[in-house]
Amino acid sequence: MSKGRMIVCDGGNGAGKSTVLAAIEQHLRRQGRDPVMTREPGGTPIGEKVRGILLSPDTPEMLGITELLLFAAARAQHVREKIRPALEAGKVVVSDRFDSATISFQHYAQGLPLELVTQINAFATEGFKPDLTIVLDLDPALGLERVGTRGGPLDRIELQELDFLKRAREGYLAQANADPEGFVVIDAAQPLEQVIEAAIAEVDRVLSS
Amino acid sequence: MSKGRMIVCDGGNGAGKSTVLAAIEQHLRRQGRDPVMTREPGGTPIGEKVRGILLSPDTPEMLGITELLLFAAARAQHVREKIRPALEAGKVVVSDRFDSATISFQHYAQGLPLELVTQINAFATEGFKPDLTIVLDLDPALGLERVGTRGGPLDRIELQELDFLKRAREGYLAQANADPEGFVVIDAAQPLEQVIEAAIAEVDRVLSS
Ligand SMILES: Nc1ncnc2c1ncn2[C@@H]1O[C@H](COP(=O)(O)OP(=O)(O)OP(=O)(O)O)[C@@H](O)[C@H]1O
Ligand SMILES: Nc1ncnc2c1ncn2[C@@H]1O[C@H](COP(=O)(O)OP(=O)(O)OP(=O)(O)O)[C@@H](O)[C@H]1O
Ligand SMILES: [Mg+2]
Ligand SMILES: [Mg+2]
Repeated sequence: MSKGRMIVCDGGNGAGKSTVLAAIEQHLRRQGRDPVMTREPGGTPIGEKVRGILLSPDTPEMLGITELLLFAAARAQHVREKIRPALEAGKVVVSDRFDSATISFQHYAQGLPLELVTQINAFATEGFKPDLTIVLDLDPALGLERVGTRGGPLDRIELQELDFLKRAREGYLAQANADPEGFVVIDAAQPLEQVIEAAIAEVDRVLSS
Repeated sequence: MSKGRMIVCDGGNGAGKSTVLAAIEQHLRRQGRDPVMTREPGGTPIGEKVRGILLSPDTPEMLGITELLLFAAARAQHVREKIRPALEAGKVVVSDRFDSATISFQHYAQGLPLELVTQINAFATEGFKPDLTIVLDLDPALGLERVGTRGGPLDRIELQELDFLKRAREGYLAQANADPEGFVVIDAAQPLEQVIEAAIAEVDRVLSS
């Protein structure tokens, strides 16, 4: 039985994760593989319920630490219920976001202490790490445009958000810089075809190693 | 302005928490106080959503670590959004369960490492501790009877659950033993009137100290 592998596609909003993941899935199916496509937050029935709380617009009072612990709860269940069993069965697991997003958003963007974020992450994952995290790197202003924010100058709130997203972007780059084995950065401003080609080359590399 | 205080009523299922808490509230109102009555898991809109996930019978696959992190998420929000502000306004906060329940159920009953449970708890509460935790101590078999489990001999599952609840009971006693300033144990097998009298005496003692 072939060894299971886990590949994550991560990056800012509108960087192209969903689009690239669909191409990766198609590529893996053409190779005769049966990949487990999953996402965070979510990935399990319990995780999807937690996602509902995290993404709900009716509780803007949610604090950073609450968010961090909810992400961790969903991830703890995700790793043990779905990811590990799939890897043990020799499958390829491909996830839309994973722990890298928590480091980028909760630490770099939101400002929670790195040690806190890392420790709670480690409780959730028991130290489990994906084989590769593909970071789609893009100027957040471009990402917002892609997901359909109106054109024209940004207002105060949008500028704040942009600043937040810029810090998250720096967080992805910092993580990739610190762990060149575990991360690869792809310039997501390139034409989609080239982004997909680069991502698939990375996937093939990991699966043949 | 008088100093805020937080009092918790905790203990096994059916020990009498809700009944005693109603009596405590009535007593405090008679004293002209306006107590903040709250509960865990829950206590805030976000916490009540998390409670919904925790108590939902449709996800029996929920793991201990997931449960622990969900309790912690709800508690983090509870402490910062509701408890601390009420205490800062000089209020008396009275909670149906709090961190003692997590130690008893997740560590003593469920077997998660004490250090893990304590650390995640500490992240959630930032080290905040109630002024007093009143433990209603009762043989869990009696507690189950009170909340309406059928009479007659217990089946295998019920015996397992009883064993689990017995370990949780030992956990409450161990916590009280280790922190005689922060805990008081009341024999909840006594007639309700006596249990309430003892609980109210403790509340008055804490509020006058
Ligand atoms: N390299 C690219 N060049 C131009 N447009 C792109 C590129 N990649 C993706 N897009 C387009 O940008 C939009 C957002 O892409 P996609 O939904 O895949 O991003 P995402 O990272 O999944 O976003 P979200 O964070 O909202 O989930 C889509 O319309 C997609 O077709
Ligand atoms: N000391 C007592 N003696 C006899 N019956 C009691 C006593 N205390 C409570 N009861 C009864 O036991 C039942 C359970 O009490 P209660 O609902 O207050 O317990 P609880 O600890 O809140 O339970 P739960 O864990 O389900 O929330 C109620 O019917 C209550 O009237
Ligand atoms: Mg997407
Ligand atoms: Mg009750």
